[in-house]
Amino acid sequence: METLLQYINILGTFAFAISGALIAMKKKLDPFGVLILAFTTAVGGGTIRDMLIEKRTAFWLVEPEYLYVIAAGTLFAILFRKKLTYLRKTIMLFDSAGLGLFTIAGVEIALQHGFGFVSCIVLGTITGSFGGVIRDIFANEVPVIFRKEIYATVTVLGGICYLLLRKAGFDFILVQLVPILMIIVMRVLAVYYKWSLPIIFVKEDEDSEDE
Amino acid sequence: METLLQYINILGTFAFAISGALIAMKKKLDPFGVLILAFTTAVGGGTIRDMLIEKRTAFWLVEPEYLYVIAAGTLFAILFRKKLTYLRKTIMLFDSAGLGLFTIAGVEIALQHGFGFVSCIVLGTITGSFGGVIRDIFANEVPVIFRKEIYATVTVLGGICYLLLRKAGFDFILVQLVPILMIIVMRVLAVYYKWSLPIIFVKEDEDSEDE
Amino acid sequence: METLLQYINILGTFAFAISGALIAMKKKLDPFGVLILAFTTAVGGGTIRDMLIEKRTAFWLVEPEYLYVIAAGTLFAILFRKKLTYLRKTIMLFDSAGLGLFTIAGVEIALQHGFGFVSCIVLGTITGSFGGVIRDIFANEVPVIFRKEIYATVTVLGGICYLLLRKAGFDFILVQLVPILMIIVMRVLAVYYKWSLPIIFVKEDEDSEDE
Repeated sequence: METLLQYINILGTFAFAISGALIAMKKKLDPFGVLILAFTTAVGGGTIRDMLIEKRTAFWLVEPEYLYVIAAGTLFAILFRKKLTYLRKTIMLFDSAGLGLFTIAGVEIALQHGFGFVSCIVLGTITGSFGGVIRDIFANEVPVIFRKEIYATVTVLGGICYLLLRKAGFDFILVQLVPILMIIVMRVLAVYYKWSLPIIFVKEDEDSEDE
Repeated sequence: METLLQYINILGTFAFAISGALIAMKKKLDPFGVLILAFTTAVGGGTIRDMLIEKRTAFWLVEPEYLYVIAAGTLFAILFRKKLTYLRKTIMLFDSAGLGLFTIAGVEIALQHGFGFVSCIVLGTITGSFGGVIRDIFANEVPVIFRKEIYATVTVLGGICYLLLRKAGFDFILVQLVPILMIIVMRVLAVYYKWSLPIIFVKEDEDSEDE
Repeated sequence: METLLQYINILGTFAFAISGALIAMKKKLDPFGVLILAFTTAVGGGTIRDMLIEKRTAFWLVEPEYLYVIAAGTLFAILFRKKLTYLRKTIMLFDSAGLGLFTIAGVEIALQHGFGFVSCIVLGTITGSFGGVIRDIFANEVPVIFRKEIYATVTVLGGICYLLLRKAGFDFILVQLVPILMIIVMRVLAVYYKWSLPIIFVKEDEDSEDE
């Protein structure tokens, strides 16, 4: 079981790295820029989580295996950049798996530090989705998760599910697997059926300019 | 007195959340993006402050009340988005109150960690104004505080005033209230009279391109 | 020797501050924005390094001398903004010196915290080059180091050289000076001969949109 989760973790990191590398190549960054975007996409969320908590060093500094996986993901994305269109669905599946696992890992770490319900959910969401936020900021775009695909909504629901199951005292494997699968399934359905939240906006001249 | 400051703190968080939510709606983010922008605007400055200092966990992880205030501010901004034009002045007042309180809170925390005069001022400015910086970066714009309204200048002057009054040994209430009011008044006047610093710039072809 | 390194460090901070101030003036920021961009460019890399490691406070909070150097660099850039075209080469030299010293300082600090080879290199690169990344994000541009000039590549090579020389047990002065000089020389040559990595990209319609 532990091994299964570790495999998912590695695949998630790999998929996040590919996602960062692809955006970097679209933006015509040089190979080093591609590597850095792959790196920040894959570790960004967990790194911010570790920065927010007093007694934590960024996880990839003490577990450099992640850096190898990212290097491999970057190389893979560069070599197969033309074929990745056909692998789009496979990548999205890994990406969703990573999202699920990273989110739940973030919630669990928050719990271990004794934070409350809402703080745990927020840390889980940050862990799962802020790698993509940094990726988009480095690529000079408004982060995609703020705009579509109910990406963050899915992590919040998954995090709540995890906390409830854990409190209810279910079996550890169940407590972990159910919300991770739930995040994966919801994300895949959201992409497939193009689910998104309704957009509420204000027109330029309607809003307050004073801050 | 303590209670008064706490009220200002809550109102400031509320106003910062509204400010973030309004910009997010202008940028047509989805409701979750609106919430995240409200969140980062309200807690961003204090969070960076807490990250910069070795022994601090981000304040909102241990005081989740802030998260409820932010959720309320976001909901308020979404519901009353059309009427907020007329409330512009009220919001700006809260926002200025938040700016004043956050800045002085940042300076005080820096003092308690034993940092020097200049470091205290810098930490105060970061606490007061970097929430807005993150908000603008997430919205893919050059941060407004770098461009106009002497926003940051006001926090620097308020911070200096606080340190001087505190060193002079005045009454604690006075030491806190005077610089907070000073920041509020200067900010309101700056917005009202459109005060801004003169802009010094170099033309594209005049500058150094090499880094 | 210690003194020499300290001089380079100060000159590097000064040059990084000028680089940030110049970009800020190009972007027509107000003087406070110019100062903040100078500040983040100069201390950004080291600050992120200090945030990533559990037991570190941002270096400039405890060594405020850096803040004075940055203020001086900003003033210098504002006063001599028109003449800085002619000084372009001099500035680039300081900037490269700063890059070399900051990178090696980052690698050394990572070593002292017991991190592995790859983590040391990554921390060195972040220390040397992420100040420029933050500068460009604040200026709303895709970071230049992701696009050209083999900036980051140079820091990686310098970091590897440092770790190898140090392990080989060479004299401390040599271990420090050789990689710093190597970074300076490679960087200067890269700018002079316009070296850059080949760009590998994917066309918009070729890529995966799903994340």
